[in-house]
Amino acid sequence: MGVNSNRVEDSSGVACHENTVRVSIEAMPPLEIHTVCLPPTQTTLHKLKHRLSEIFFPDDPLHRFKNQTLFTRVILGLQYFLPIFEWGSNYSFKLLRSDVISGLTIASLAIPQGISYAKLANLPPIVGLYSSFVPPLIYSILGSSRHLAVGPVSIASLVMGTMLSEVVSYSEEPILYLKLAFTATFFAGLFQASLGLLRLGFIIDFLSKATLIGFMAGSAVIVSLQQLKGLLGIVHFTSKMGIIPVLSSVFEHREECSWQTIVMGFSFLIFLLTTRQISMRKPKLFWISAAAPLTSVILSTILVFSLKSKLHGIITIGHLPKGLNPPSSNMLYFHGPYLALAIKTGIVTGILSLTEGIAVGRTFAALQNYQVDGNKEMMAIGLMNMAGSSSSCYVTTGSFSRSAVNYNAGAKTAVSNIIMASAVLVTLLFLMPLFQYTPNFILAAIIITAVIGLIDYQAAFRLWKVDKLDFLSCFCSFFGVLFISVPMGLAIAVSVSVFKILLHVTRPNTIVLGNIPGTHIYQSPGRYREALRVPSFLILAVESPIYFANSTYLQERILRWVREEEEWIRAKNESTLKCVILDMTAVTAIDTSGIETMCELRKMLEKRSLQLVLANPVGTVMEKLHQSEVLDSFGLYGLYLTVGEAVANISSLWKAQP
Amino acid sequence: MGVNSNRVEDSSGVACHENTVRVSIEAMPPLEIHTVCLPPTQTTLHKLKHRLSEIFFPDDPLHRFKNQTLFTRVILGLQYFLPIFEWGSNYSFKLLRSDVISGLTIASLAIPQGISYAKLANLPPIVGLYSSFVPPLIYSILGSSRHLAVGPVSIASLVMGTMLSEVVSYSEEPILYLKLAFTATFFAGLFQASLGLLRLGFIIDFLSKATLIGFMAGSAVIVSLQQLKGLLGIVHFTSKMGIIPVLSSVFEHREECSWQTIVMGFSFLIFLLTTRQISMRKPKLFWISAAAPLTSVILSTILVFSLKSKLHGIITIGHLPKGLNPPSSNMLYFHGPYLALAIKTGIVTGILSLTEGIAVGRTFAALQNYQVDGNKEMMAIGLMNMAGSSSSCYVTTGSFSRSAVNYNAGAKTAVSNIIMASAVLVTLLFLMPLFQYTPNFILAAIIITAVIGLIDYQAAFRLWKVDKLDFLSCFCSFFGVLFISVPMGLAIAVSVSVFKILLHVTRPNTIVLGNIPGTHIYQSPGRYREALRVPSFLILAVESPIYFANSTYLQERILRWVREEEEWIRAKNESTLKCVILDMTAVTAIDTSGIETMCELRKMLEKRSLQLVLANPVGTVMEKLHQSEVLDSFGLYGLYLTVGEAVANISSLWKAQP
Repeated sequence: MGVNSNRVEDSSGVACHENTVRVSIEAMPPLEIHTVCLPPTQTTLHKLKHRLSEIFFPDDPLHRFKNQTLFTRVILGLQYFLPIFEWGSNYSFKLLRSDVISGLTIASLAIPQGISYAKLANLPPIVGLYSSFVPPLIYSILGSSRHLAVGPVSIASLVMGTMLSEVVSYSEEPILYLKLAFTATFFAGLFQASLGLLRLGFIIDFLSKATLIGFMAGSAVIVSLQQLKGLLGIVHFTSKMGIIPVLSSVFEHREECSWQTIVMGFSFLIFLLTTRQISMRKPKLFWISAAAPLTSVILSTILVFSLKSKLHGIITIGHLPKGLNPPSSNMLYFHGPYLALAIKTGIVTGILSLTEGIAVGRTFAALQNYQVDGNKEMMAIGLMNMAGSSSSCYVTTGSFSRSAVNYNAGAKTAVSNIIMASAVLVTLLFLMPLFQYTPNFILAAIIITAVIGLIDYQAAFRLWKVDKLDFLSCFCSFFGVLFISVPMGLAIAVSVSVFKILLHVTRPNTIVLGNIPGTHIYQSPGRYREALRVPSFLILAVESPIYFANSTYLQERILRWVREEEEWIRAKNESTLKCVILDMTAVTAIDTSGIETMCELRKMLEKRSLQLVLANPVGTVMEKLHQSEVLDSFGLYGLYLTVGEAVANISSLWKAQP
Repeated sequence: MGVNSNRVEDSSGVACHENTVRVSIEAMPPLEIHTVCLPPTQTTLHKLKHRLSEIFFPDDPLHRFKNQTLFTRVILGLQYFLPIFEWGSNYSFKLLRSDVISGLTIASLAIPQGISYAKLANLPPIVGLYSSFVPPLIYSILGSSRHLAVGPVSIASLVMGTMLSEVVSYSEEPILYLKLAFTATFFAGLFQASLGLLRLGFIIDFLSKATLIGFMAGSAVIVSLQQLKGLLGIVHFTSKMGIIPVLSSVFEHREECSWQTIVMGFSFLIFLLTTRQISMRKPKLFWISAAAPLTSVILSTILVFSLKSKLHGIITIGHLPKGLNPPSSNMLYFHGPYLALAIKTGIVTGILSLTEGIAVGRTFAALQNYQVDGNKEMMAIGLMNMAGSSSSCYVTTGSFSRSAVNYNAGAKTAVSNIIMASAVLVTLLFLMPLFQYTPNFILAAIIITAVIGLIDYQAAFRLWKVDKLDFLSCFCSFFGVLFISVPMGLAIAVSVSVFKILLHVTRPNTIVLGNIPGTHIYQSPGRYREALRVPSFLILAVESPIYFANSTYLQERILRWVREEEEWIRAKNESTLKCVILDMTAVTAIDTSGIETMCELRKMLEKRSLQLVLANPVGTVMEKLHQSEVLDSFGLYGLYLTVGEAVANISSLWKAQP
C-alpha cells in the first residue's frame, strides 16, 4: 500500500483532499468473527404488550406494589392517589412554621394577581379571587409537588380572554360570557384529567421549550399592549389581540387618555419593575418583589380614595361582592351554538396551563431531587379545574411566579397552598369593600410586570447559538402569536417542531468511515484525522431509521457515494472497489419500504459486481430482515457483528481466493 | 468475580433471569484510549448550504458538467432537459422495429382503456382518446424513462370523477364539468412541474407503499361497484363514491336491470379475467391480455350492431366526433366559485398520478439497471399535463398496466409512445364512427378487469407479517377510502405513517449492554447469550435522536433503569453501581431540550454519587454539546470514543484510587 492522494469527504459537509496513507489490513490486530444473532422470538401479543407498556407506563407506576402485603398495598394505593397521606403522616410543627410563612407570602401576591389576571381574561375581578381559594385546597390533597403554588396564570387567562372575546363580548352578554368561561374551565379540567388517566401525558411534550419561549414572549408583548387601556385610562378599546388592532386602537382613542392615570400608572410600573430587578439580582431579597404588588395595591387605593374628589379620570374596580365562591354548576353550558367554542377554548387553555403546571412542578422537584409523576399531576390539575368550574373559578394551574416565591419563602409541603387559600378566604369574607377604590391602572402595571418576565431573549439567543431549527420554531411561535392568533401561532410552532423531526428522518446523514490504525474502530476521517480509508472497501454509516420517507433518498445517496468513489478510484488509479459495508448501528428501525430498498440496493450493487455487507443491525431490524426473508439473499458473508470483523473476514477471504 | 445470578432485561421486552458469569475486567484485551474529536468548525452559512444541497440536490445533478468544455456543457444541458437528444443520436433501425411492435401493442390496449377511463372520470369517451395522443408525444421528448407508457390511469380518473361529481354533475352542466376537468388537469400539471422544479420530489415519498396498497385496493372496490351501473344496465345511478350509497342505489333501481346486458357483460368480464389470469401465470403470453380489451370491444360492438333490432335495453357509447384534439385553452377556468375545487382536485390527482408515474418509471428502470431522475420526471409529467389541459386532455401519467405490456412487448425507447400516439391519431381521424355501437357494459368490464389487479392482498399479508404499523396504515387507507372519501382516506393514511415516525421518536428503545468476553464489543445480553454485564457499570444504548418529544421520557426511563439496577444489586448483594455509560452511537441528533435533559440527568446521577459517561457521540451531537457548554460539565473522564475504552479507562482509574 503506497502513499496516495486520499480524498476524504463526508456527508456533514467536510471535504479534505490530502496526501494520507491508506490503512494496511495486515496492520490490524487479529480478530475472532462472531455471528449476528436474531433477538429471541416473541409472539405478536407479547410484543404489543411490551410496546404498549413502554408507551403508557414507561415509569412502571406499579413497581412499589410488587411483593407487598395486601394491607401495605392498600396504604400505598391511598398514598398513590392522595399524596397528602404520604407526607401528611410525617407532618411536624417545624414544617408548619415554614409553610405558614410561605403561605402568607404567596397570599400577598395571589390577591392582586388574582384580580389582575381575571381582568386579563375579561372576567370580573372577584372570579380571580374565587380561583385562588378552591383550587389550591384541592391541589393540596391531590398534588404530588411540594412547591407548586396554584392559582390563575397569565397565559391561560390571556388565551381564554382572547378566544372567548372574539365571539362573545363580556360587556354585552356578561352571563353568557361567564357561562362559557366556566364551561371552558370544565372542559379544560376534563381534558387534563383524561390525559392523565389515559396516560397520554407525552402529548404535552410536543410543546417543546423552544416553542414555549417564543409563545410566551409573543403573548407577553400582546398582553402588555392590551394593558395600555388601563395604563393610559382609555375607555373605548378594541377586544382584539393582534398587535395592529391594539396599536391602532390606542392611536384612535388617544384623546381619551387621562394624564393623572398615566403619571400614577407609570410611577407604579417603574416601582414594580425596580423591585423585580432587585429580587432578580439578589434572590435572597425575593420578598421585595413578592410584597410589591400588594403594597402597590394598598398605596394606590389609599391615594385614589384620598384624592377621589380631585381626580375624575381614574377608573377603579368598583364594588365587589363579599362572600365565598357561589356554586356555578348550574352555569355549565352543555348544548347550544357556543359549545364548540367552549370546548376549543377549554382544550387550548387546558393544554397550555398543563404545560406550565407540569414544567414548574418538575423544575422545583429537580432542585430538591424528588420526582413528580406527570400523569398523576395531570389528574390533580384536571380534577382541581373540574371542581373549580362548579365553584365560580376559571382555569388554574401551578403558577411559575407564585411557585418561585413559595420555594424561596421556604415552603416545605402543599400546606402552604392551604394557608394561602385561608388568607384568600379571609379576604373574600371581610376585606372585599377595601378594593372598591383600587384603580385599574395598578392592575395593568401588575400584569405588565408579570408578563415582562416571560420575555426571555437570552434563552432565544442560546437557541440560535445551539440549534437553528429550535430557534426557528421559537421565532415562528413568537410571530405567529403576535400577528395571526394565539392558537394559530401555537399550531404553527408545533408543526415546525414536528417538521424538524420529519426533516431529520427524510434526509438522514450518511458518513464514510475509515479505520483508526492499530484498532478495529471505524470513524469518519473528516472528524478523526488518524482514521484512514480501507482500500477496496466503501464503509458507510447510515444515521437514521430507514423508512418510507427516506428509503428513496438513501438508495440514491448510497449509489452516489459508490459512483463518486468509483470515479475517484478511476482518476487515481487505485485498487478497485469490491465491497460496500453499511454500518447499521444507528439504523434503529426499518419498515417494509426500507426492507425493499435494502433488497434493491443489494441487487443493483451486485449488477456492478459489488458486494453489499451489513454490519451490526439492531434487534428489531434484524428481526424484520429475517421475517421478510431478505436476510437469506445476503448470504453467509453479508452480515457481520462489527465493521472491523467484516473488513477482516472479507479481506482474508479475498486473499484465500485471489 | 464469582458466579452470580445475573438478571438481564432489555427494553425490547426480553427478560431472562439466569445464572451467568459476570465479565472480569482483567480478562479484556489491553486498550489504547482515544480522545473524542469535535467535527471541524464550519460557518453557519456553510452548514446551511450543505444542508440545503442535501435536501434539494441529494443526487448532485450537476456532477456531469464538472470539468467539461463549454460546448460539451451545452450538449449535456440539452440532453439533461430534453432526454430525446441523449438516446436519439444512437437510435437505430433495430431499435425502431422493437418500438413499433410494442407501440402497436400498447395502442390496442390504450384505445379501449382511454374510452373506459374517461367514463370513470365522468368525462365523454373521446377525451380519453385525446389524452392518449398529445401527452405521449410530449413525454417522448421530455421523459427520461425508456419504458413508461403514458396515458390516462384508473386512480387519477376515479379521483377526478369523484371529486368533481360531488359538486358539479356532468349530465346537468357538461360544459362547466369539462372546464373544471381541464382546469384541474392544468393545476395538476402546474403542481407536478413545480414539485420537480423546486426539487420537492420527496413529498411523494410520504405516500408510502403500504399506504398505496390500501388506497388502491379501496379505490378498486369502489370503482368496481360503480361499474355495476354499466354491467347491469341501470340508467339512474348515484354519482356518490361511498360503498353504502352505491349498493343502495343498485338495490333501489334493480328493476331497471336488463338481462341481455347482464348476460353479455358478465360473459365478457369472465373472458377478460381469464385472459388476465393466463398472462399472469405465463408472462410470455402477455399479448393475450394486452389484445383482449380491443378484441372484446370489436366483438361486442359487432354483436350489438348485428342484433340492434332485437336488443333494446343495451346502452351504447353513441356518436363520437371525428378529428384531432380541439384546443381547450379557452376553457381553463381561473376565477369564479369553483376555482378552489379545481385546484384541490388538481393537487390530489396530481400527487396521485405522480406517485404512480414515478413508481412505475423506477420499477422498470431498476429491471434494466438504469436510473430515473425523480425531479426531472416530475417536470416531464407536469409539462405534459399542462400541455394536455390546452388540448382537451385530462390528467395522464405513466400507467402501470400499459408500461408492463410495453416492457414485455420489447420496447427500447420512448419511441414506442410516439407509435402509440400515431395509432391513436389514425383512430381519431378515421375510425371513430366504428365505436358508435360499442356497448357501455364492455367498458365496465374492461375497467373492472383493470382495477381488480390493484387489489394486492398478498402484499397486505406480507405487511402484516413484517411490520404491523405498516399494515395499520394500509388498513386505514383502505377503509378510509371505502367508507369516508378518497382524499380523507389518503389523509388518514399519511397521518398514520407520520404518526409511526413520531411514535418511534417519542418512545425510543433503551437497551442494556454487556461485554462479549475477550473483546471490546458491547451488545445486548438479551440477544447475545455470550454478552455479560460489567460489574459496577450500567451501560445503556439509546436508540434514537434526543428531542423535545422524547427528552422527558428518556430521562425518566434512564432513571428507572438505574433504580431497577440498584434494587437488583441490593437484593443480590452485588458490587455497588458506580458509573452509567450512555452509548450515543445511535443518537444521531440532539436539540436544546435534549441537551438540557443530558445536563439534568448528569446532575441527578451526581446527587446519587453516580458518574455519567458518554460514549461515541456523533459529530453533530458533539458539536451541540460543545456549543451549549454542557461538555465542560462532563469533565475529562466523561467522554470516550467507545464503550470499551470507557470501561477500561474508568475501571483502571478506580483501581489506581480505591
